[in-house]
Amino acid sequence: MQKNSSPVVILVRPQMGENIGAVARAMSNFGLRELRIAAPRDGWPNPKALEMAAGAESIIESAKIFPDFKAAMADVQLAYATTARKRDMEKRVVEPDVAMQEIKQLLSSPLPNPPPQAGEGIKIALVFGPERSGLENDEVTWCDTLITIPTAPENSSLNIAQSAVILGYEWFRQGTGFIHLRQGFGGQRIQDSGETPESLAPRAEWEGLFGQLEHYLDQAEYFRVAHKKPVMWQNLQTMFLRSQLSSQEVRTLRGMFRSLWERAPERD
Amino acid sequence: MQKNSSPVVILVRPQMGENIGAVARAMSNFGLRELRIAAPRDGWPNPKALEMAAGAESIIESAKIFPDFKAAMADVQLAYATTARKRDMEKRVVEPDVAMQEIKQLLSSPLPNPPPQAGEGIKIALVFGPERSGLENDEVTWCDTLITIPTAPENSSLNIAQSAVILGYEWFRQGTGFIHLRQGFGGQRIQDSGETPESLAPRAEWEGLFGQLEHYLDQAEYFRVAHKKPVMWQNLQTMFLRSQLSSQEVRTLRGMFRSLWERAPERD
Repeated sequence: MQKNSSPVVILVRPQMGENIGAVARAMSNFGLRELRIAAPRDGWPNPKALEMAAGAESIIESAKIFPDFKAAMADVQLAYATTARKRDMEKRVVEPDVAMQEIKQLLSSPLPNPPPQAGEGIKIALVFGPERSGLENDEVTWCDTLITIPTAPENSSLNIAQSAVILGYEWFRQGTGFIHLRQGFGGQRIQDSGETPESLAPRAEWEGLFGQLEHYLDQAEYFRVAHKKPVMWQNLQTMFLRSQLSSQEVRTLRGMFRSLWERAPERD
Repeated sequence: MQKNSSPVVILVRPQMGENIGAVARAMSNFGLRELRIAAPRDGWPNPKALEMAAGAESIIESAKIFPDFKAAMADVQLAYATTARKRDMEKRVVEPDVAMQEIKQLLSSPLPNPPPQAGEGIKIALVFGPERSGLENDEVTWCDTLITIPTAPENSSLNIAQSAVILGYEWFRQGTGFIHLRQGFGGQRIQDSGETPESLAPRAEWEGLFGQLEHYLDQAEYFRVAHKKPVMWQNLQTMFLRSQLSSQEVRTLRGMFRSLWERAPERD
């Protein structure tokens, strides 16, 4: 059994039930499960928390309530506090992506010499202060590292639900392994769309499409000035090729051109 | 004067004023300023939006209201839609960091020879659908790229306020210079083609092109089975939109379709 595979979220003296619910929702969106609440202002259970928890009801229902900050932190081994205000403290400050990467590494690296009764892995907490005032300085002191979310200077106030969304998002990204190098557009089009590279139309099929289209355009006297045709025709082909069509899509386009050509209304 | 230095946020048929306010708050937290709202369910102004806007009142007050999605998109040249549901569409899908990096590059690349009257930069939109149902398929078709926020399978439902926080966060990170270089696609198309970003066709011009083509195809009875038309037509539009045409190229295609249609040979 692997326990403590993700950090625990600790809300310290949260004021509004709605915010507790929104934090739980963000947790469940991003694979976090264990919620602790220290001294909630409006008591517990709080129906407003459940209302806002859309899909995270089980997190609210299994949340553990503690009388104060220190009690909620008793078994925590490493704590990361989210803070907006600058603190006059010699604390390490990191941004969310760095913090979550560290935590992921700490939780997934096997212990070299696991003590017999440990077995649960390291206990790591993400700590959020009360909405209005944030954490007290002595609570910040109690944490190892501060997480600061970069914000625009004109409005740097994030509520705990917003902060939890961002930390959750960065946490979940650590597990998906997609922070690595990406392909450029071509490869990505294939990967993202679920196309196999094999489904992209080979040039022979494009040739069929272009042969058909050129035939129509010649008959329609689209290329009015003969010496301009080569460049005009290159440009048209380039526009179509840029969309990286599959074989099926090439057939669709051919059918569409045929319709336009063969079923145009009669004129006099 | 530098305009369009950040993307515009478009909320399509938003339902709850609280969510509109929360989106505005996230925008101001992360340096986004221009909000458009298409057909808000509860009309406008909405006092609940202002209540939730903590620090973003000016964004709410200067929000522009449009009668529908297409009107809000008329001058948009590149659109990124946030979607949770998997769409059965040949659209490029990226995650938030990649999307925001692309947008940053497109908006900040200095033009080698800026045309005298350009000066406003490219118009890029982040599009959010209604809370309950998300964007309609034909609205998704109208966008270039889908942004999917990775979430835990047990609860993948993010509301628009949560999504806006994450997109805003990734947007703001692009400005702080700590994200390393990735390949983009938007920039690539621009670079490879020697186009300036400003030359990309706005949606109003695509609408003209598609209106013309649909008219021809209807007359040609291309969509034989009426109930299949919506999907067929979405797929066709998606194929064309994927090639990210300039205004000039849209005009070229329109001329080509007109030739095919009007100069087809007479039959009996």
